[in-house]
Amino acid sequence: MDKKPHVAIVGATGAVGREMLTCLEERNFPLSKITLLASTRSAGKRLKFRNEALTVEELTVESFHGIDIALFSAGGGISKEFAPIAAEAGCIVIDNSSAFRMNPDVPLILPEINGRAALNPSRNIIANPNCSTIITLMGLAPLHQAFGLKGIIASTYQAVSGSGAQGIIELEEQIKALVAGNPLKTSVYPHQIAHNVIPHVDVFQETGYTKEEQKMLHESRKILGIPELKVTCTCVRVPVVRSHSISITAIFEKDPSVEDARKTFEGRRGIRLVDDPQKALYPVPLGTTGNDDCEVGRIRKDQVLPNALALWVVGDQIKKGAALNAVQIAEIL
Amino acid sequence: MDKKPHVAIVGATGAVGREMLTCLEERNFPLSKITLLASTRSAGKRLKFRNEALTVEELTVESFHGIDIALFSAGGGISKEFAPIAAEAGCIVIDNSSAFRMNPDVPLILPEINGRAALNPSRNIIANPNCSTIITLMGLAPLHQAFGLKGIIASTYQAVSGSGAQGIIELEEQIKALVAGNPLKTSVYPHQIAHNVIPHVDVFQETGYTKEEQKMLHESRKILGIPELKVTCTCVRVPVVRSHSISITAIFEKDPSVEDARKTFEGRRGIRLVDDPQKALYPVPLGTTGNDDCEVGRIRKDQVLPNALALWVVGDQIKKGAALNAVQIAEIL
Repeated sequence: MDKKPHVAIVGATGAVGREMLTCLEERNFPLSKITLLASTRSAGKRLKFRNEALTVEELTVESFHGIDIALFSAGGGISKEFAPIAAEAGCIVIDNSSAFRMNPDVPLILPEINGRAALNPSRNIIANPNCSTIITLMGLAPLHQAFGLKGIIASTYQAVSGSGAQGIIELEEQIKALVAGNPLKTSVYPHQIAHNVIPHVDVFQETGYTKEEQKMLHESRKILGIPELKVTCTCVRVPVVRSHSISITAIFEKDPSVEDARKTFEGRRGIRLVDDPQKALYPVPLGTTGNDDCEVGRIRKDQVLPNALALWVVGDQIKKGAALNAVQIAEIL
Repeated sequence: MDKKPHVAIVGATGAVGREMLTCLEERNFPLSKITLLASTRSAGKRLKFRNEALTVEELTVESFHGIDIALFSAGGGISKEFAPIAAEAGCIVIDNSSAFRMNPDVPLILPEINGRAALNPSRNIIANPNCSTIITLMGLAPLHQAFGLKGIIASTYQAVSGSGAQGIIELEEQIKALVAGNPLKTSVYPHQIAHNVIPHVDVFQETGYTKEEQKMLHESRKILGIPELKVTCTCVRVPVVRSHSISITAIFEKDPSVEDARKTFEGRRGIRLVDDPQKALYPVPLGTTGNDDCEVGRIRKDQVLPNALALWVVGDQIKKGAALNAVQIAEIL
């Protein structure tokens, strides 16, 4: 874009929306103006940006006149309804929901991997990938370039922030009730999440896999451009606030040594190798919370499959898993 | 045994020792007398058994005269020192530590799989398997019998009870400090466990795997009698009190359908199929806490490997993962 854009955030008061605002400020994103949009319920709230208190406006079909880039993070329903309206008004939409990700004429962008595909989006809509997929692929992309990725077997340890601010509140309230000895309330999750883990993220499909688990398959194929990539994923919610961890067995065309695998992360942007287990150095969720970079560690030869590595990747779900990645897409534009 | 045995518990005041006492009581174990043994520090404590308050005695080299069965759960060091003394005195030792598990003349017993191997132990010592291995194999044994197990790729979600009473206290104290806004203390684990997950259980070896991860390989081979079984495991501590969960991809000789796989659990002892995800029914740690039975669910075709299933197994680490299994071995005798 030739001039500094006018940027909007749709869903500005949500956990990801607020973090988008923080990312724009932290990265000193060049913009001429920022407009914060949300539902009627949240309109009128004030959020700080560059020492200014901005008032959140109500999202309407008229909201997008004059806006150049709109970062959407208000759920799939809002995206389906308002993203085409914004795009029609000439605004480029960067959508954090799953509404358009698998649409063949909507690019699905992880800037470190396929950032160039974000240029000149034919429908004015660009999709931001699923959070677990982003963090997993941040760990696998350097290895894929070196050894040729063929398959992923993954088990996730997903933070409650993936369910938005409500997920964080539910965990905190349950923890408080546990300590106080009060009865626990459960509304966001089908089971108590404090002191528990729940192998159920997103809705179940006929095959027994959840939508979240299949996103890792379909989105990874599209982002990496490997249509025959095979993926089995088990997505599990854990009582962690905002960083996702993923335990991965990755299968390659070539046989990678652990040493060569580690070298692929040298000088990479967005992913840090933290892999000195004898010193108790490996990625943990609390160690990445609030950080832009994802972390990879525990790299070792898989003992079951040939040409395969076991590894452990962790990243902040709200940052790189959502808000930061969307802002990085906007930076490409 | 012809007469009711005199039973001892070594490490009676620990988390597993106390649960052993509970299991003996709950299962109405036929015994003539029970002796509780522990370190000097714990001697003199009183524990309830069948409405009697028993005094814990100090463990010495003289402790085992007249005792028929000794259940050991006081750590590998105590087992290495005192199990041979007890065995020499004619007592049959059922040892919950890893000290003797891989010894070729010590049977390693999971009663539902290889219970008969517990009879007439040549060295008077029988080993109780690792907790994650027990729970994983409770889920895999019926499938192995039907389809022939060849490989396991597993990621664990292990409760703090696996570190003994101290692990439970550390999680509870950290949760209290979090709620109160006080600084957190960390001593049992290398990182904060509250609001975190830690891919580090037991010590790291040269290969990058922990001892705990390799126990799943070596102990599974021995219990199932499959010397060529391949296992890759990633062991992760999670902020859960006392049930372990394991996300598994299991590879078989034959190609199992999901329906046939489910049928293998019909009428099985010790393992319950909980697999109706559309109704949010699948195993969760809180759902198995305090229960004798392990639970298996989320059974589906693995999408990466042929002849493979993905599944999710959960069991109480202190019960079936340790104390109950030891008492079940004693029942065989």
